[in-house]
Amino acid sequence: MDVAIINPFLAAAVNVLKTMAHIEPKPGKPYLKKDSSALGDVSAIIGITGDAQGSMALTFTEPCIKEVLHGLIGETVSDINDEVRDAVGELTNMICGNARQTLQGQGINLQAGIPTIVSGKNHSISHVHNGARIAVPFTTASGKFVVEVAFNK
Amino acid sequence: MDVAIINPFLAAAVNVLKTMAHIEPKPGKPYLKKDSSALGDVSAIIGITGDAQGSMALTFTEPCIKEVLHGLIGETVSDINDEVRDAVGELTNMICGNARQTLQGQGINLQAGIPTIVSGKNHSISHVHNGARIAVPFTTASGKFVVEVAFNK
Repeated sequence: MDVAIINPFLAAAVNVLKTMAHIEPKPGKPYLKKDSSALGDVSAIIGITGDAQGSMALTFTEPCIKEVLHGLIGETVSDINDEVRDAVGELTNMICGNARQTLQGQGINLQAGIPTIVSGKNHSISHVHNGARIAVPFTTASGKFVVEVAFNK
Repeated sequence: MDVAIINPFLAAAVNVLKTMAHIEPKPGKPYLKKDSSALGDVSAIIGITGDAQGSMALTFTEPCIKEVLHGLIGETVSDINDEVRDAVGELTNMICGNARQTLQGQGINLQAGIPTIVSGKNHSISHVHNGARIAVPFTTASGKFVVEVAFNK
C-alpha cells in the first residue's frame, strides 16, 4: 500500500472538519493497526473500489462528535441520535469525495460505496488481515477521533 | 432499489453459512430499517460499487458467532477475538462474492471493497438516510444474526 493513496484521505479529514465544523484537529502519531485497539462511540465506514480496493473508517468518541455537531449545526446534541449518525455519514461522504478528487488529479480513480454507521459505546474497528492499514488519531479540544484507511495489497 | 439486487445477498448469506459453518439459519421477517435497531456484538461491513452503490453488513450476537466458529473450525472460542473477527470478515467476502456472481449472471456488475470489522457489545448499524435499505434477521440454534443490504436510489 502506497502512502500516496492514504495521505489524501487524512488531509481531507482535517480539511472537511475544519471547513464544515470549524474545529482544528491535531494529528497524532500514525500507527499500523495490528489489532482493533481504537475505541469510539460512533463510526462511519465507507467502501472503496476502482484502482484500489479498500475502506475508510472514521471513529469519534462521544464528546468529540458532540463538538463536531455543535460546529456543524450550531446546536448542542444530548446524545448519539439519528441526527448525529447522519452527520457522521455525510462527513464521511465529503471526506471520501475530497480525497477521491485529489487522487483523480494524480491519475488514481476510485469509486466509493455509501457510508454505514455504527453506534455503540466503546466499539472497535478492525480489518481482515490480508492487507495494510493505517490509523491516525486526531485530538480536538473535546476529545479524539481516528481516521483509518485500509487497502488490499 | 430493486429487490432483485437484494435477494442474491440474502441467499448467499444462507448458502455460505450452511456450506461453511454447517448451520441452518431460519430467515425472519425482512424489515425496512428506519433506525438503527438491530443490535449485535460483532459485525462486518463491505462497500459495494459498480452498477449500484451500496453496502452489506452482517451482524452477529456473541452466542451465534461462537456457534458459527465452532462449525467453521471445529473449536469453541471463548470470546470475540482476532480469529473471530477474521472469520466474520472472510464470511462477508464469501457472501459478497457469491452474490456478485449471481448478479453478474443477470447482467448486473458490482465491485466490492474489503470488509471492515466492528466489535463491541450491543452496537448497532445504520445507514445514511438517502436510500433504501433492508434488514433480514436470521435465527440459528444459538442466537441470531442480521443481514443488511443498502443501496443508493
